[in-house]
Amino acid sequence: MTATALADSPGKIVIESIEGDGGRLSLDPAKNCVGIAATETLRLLGGSPSCGVSIKLQKGLPLGSGMGSSAASAAASAVAVNALFGSPIPKEKLILAGLASEAAVSGYHADNIAPALLGGFVLVRSCEPLDIQRLGFDSGDLWFVLVNPLFEAPTAEMRAVLPKLIPMSSLINNCAMGASLIAGILTGDVELIGRALDGDVVVEPVRGPLIPGFTSVKHAAKEAGAFGCTISGAGPTAVAVVADQESGERVKEAMVSAFKSSGGLEINSASIVKLDNVGARVL
Amino acid sequence: MTATALADSPGKIVIESIEGDGGRLSLDPAKNCVGIAATETLRLLGGSPSCGVSIKLQKGLPLGSGMGSSAASAAASAVAVNALFGSPIPKEKLILAGLASEAAVSGYHADNIAPALLGGFVLVRSCEPLDIQRLGFDSGDLWFVLVNPLFEAPTAEMRAVLPKLIPMSSLINNCAMGASLIAGILTGDVELIGRALDGDVVVEPVRGPLIPGFTSVKHAAKEAGAFGCTISGAGPTAVAVVADQESGERVKEAMVSAFKSSGGLEINSASIVKLDNVGARVL
Repeated sequence: MTATALADSPGKIVIESIEGDGGRLSLDPAKNCVGIAATETLRLLGGSPSCGVSIKLQKGLPLGSGMGSSAASAAASAVAVNALFGSPIPKEKLILAGLASEAAVSGYHADNIAPALLGGFVLVRSCEPLDIQRLGFDSGDLWFVLVNPLFEAPTAEMRAVLPKLIPMSSLINNCAMGASLIAGILTGDVELIGRALDGDVVVEPVRGPLIPGFTSVKHAAKEAGAFGCTISGAGPTAVAVVADQESGERVKEAMVSAFKSSGGLEINSASIVKLDNVGARVL
Repeated sequence: MTATALADSPGKIVIESIEGDGGRLSLDPAKNCVGIAATETLRLLGGSPSCGVSIKLQKGLPLGSGMGSSAASAAASAVAVNALFGSPIPKEKLILAGLASEAAVSGYHADNIAPALLGGFVLVRSCEPLDIQRLGFDSGDLWFVLVNPLFEAPTAEMRAVLPKLIPMSSLINNCAMGASLIAGILTGDVELIGRALDGDVVVEPVRGPLIPGFTSVKHAAKEAGAFGCTISGAGPTAVAVVADQESGERVKEAMVSAFKSSGGLEINSASIVKLDNVGARVL
């Protein structure tokens, strides 16, 4: 996204244009995550802003994909507005601006906005008060295969399917998986990261069946060499963890093929991406 | 404990004596955790044992304290029997012998037996199949204050009070705490370890009130400088994490005092112990 100063409208936020959203996002700053994040960033800057901000947004991620596109936009907005004023606010604090935006579009949680801003892996111990840990992955590169099928899986519906009450045995299991995920990250054990992702007994078992072909996609990813494969966010994107770009290509092909053959779905996007350790930044 | 060979009774397990249990433990090898662990270790050794084993047990931990005394005894038994035969079985595999013992006394879980054998912190991702991770704590020493009040809190009753179904928000919270505990251990962040222990919203809130004075003990421990304080196992022992022996003394006094004044309980034992990174071994 691009942010430019509006010298004659101090404090005003204008969303000039949005590309790549198929016309679905509002240009009203109060109803758009970049607008809300920009407004909150101005608030965090304090005092009376010396200028306003005009924003042009280029969406790089598909909407409703489970890849955190709203958080990505909010992070970009917060960093850009902060940069216009000389970046006095540390990124850790910009999370608060992103949280306000996330609350408006998907719920008050830092799961997406914190890593979008900080890069790498971020453990959110608590949201109120905010208590996050940036976790270093120092054992070489880590790659993800992201396959987004053409299938509308709105976040709200995917949330509604989640159980309200969970058996104690499932709690124990999923706590062990969360703990294993952190252990895998901090010890650089990618196989453990995979086993941790695959061990969820609470969310994936109920959401997976709502995504046509997902079970086959997961199976295909593992068969093709992925360490683990699960639903990205609330879906419908499937994400697999792989060792390198080469095996990523094989896993991607297997996942795409399974979505088509078992799910009857077309593919919107399929990519192999490296863990980014920097997060949102000024280009 | 002491294990000696019985040359004339190959494969036989005899529990010769038990000290420190107040006469509560059975000398029948089939009904005692050291006997079961010894029998299972012989099984793991395979073939026909060249001798039997006679065991003398000195209990170093109080029974029913929540400090894992049955697992400690089982670990000692497995290591001792293994040692009699030249220690051919790696400790990781001896966990299976301990699991058989734990199943008989407190349930099939490796939470106590794995760290009792391996030392340090051990993450149990799964028990069936067994999938454990030994987690190094490389950031200096770590100390624990253990205060065991004279109060009968049988494991079975403390278990019965646990909720069978847990709200999703509590699952999310406790997963974050388990994840934070691992992050605290692996990054050497003792304050984070403390916050992780303090953040349990599922178990401590229902078990704590069953231990007279526990809430005050926890508060007193924190006031005296502990990073965190919770129930050890199923209680009634309270455990606090502290930076060093000196602050441990202050925390211990505060906890003992709170158990007496708020809980009306006498103290069975109170100690300051350092994290042991070796686990059960031959002395």
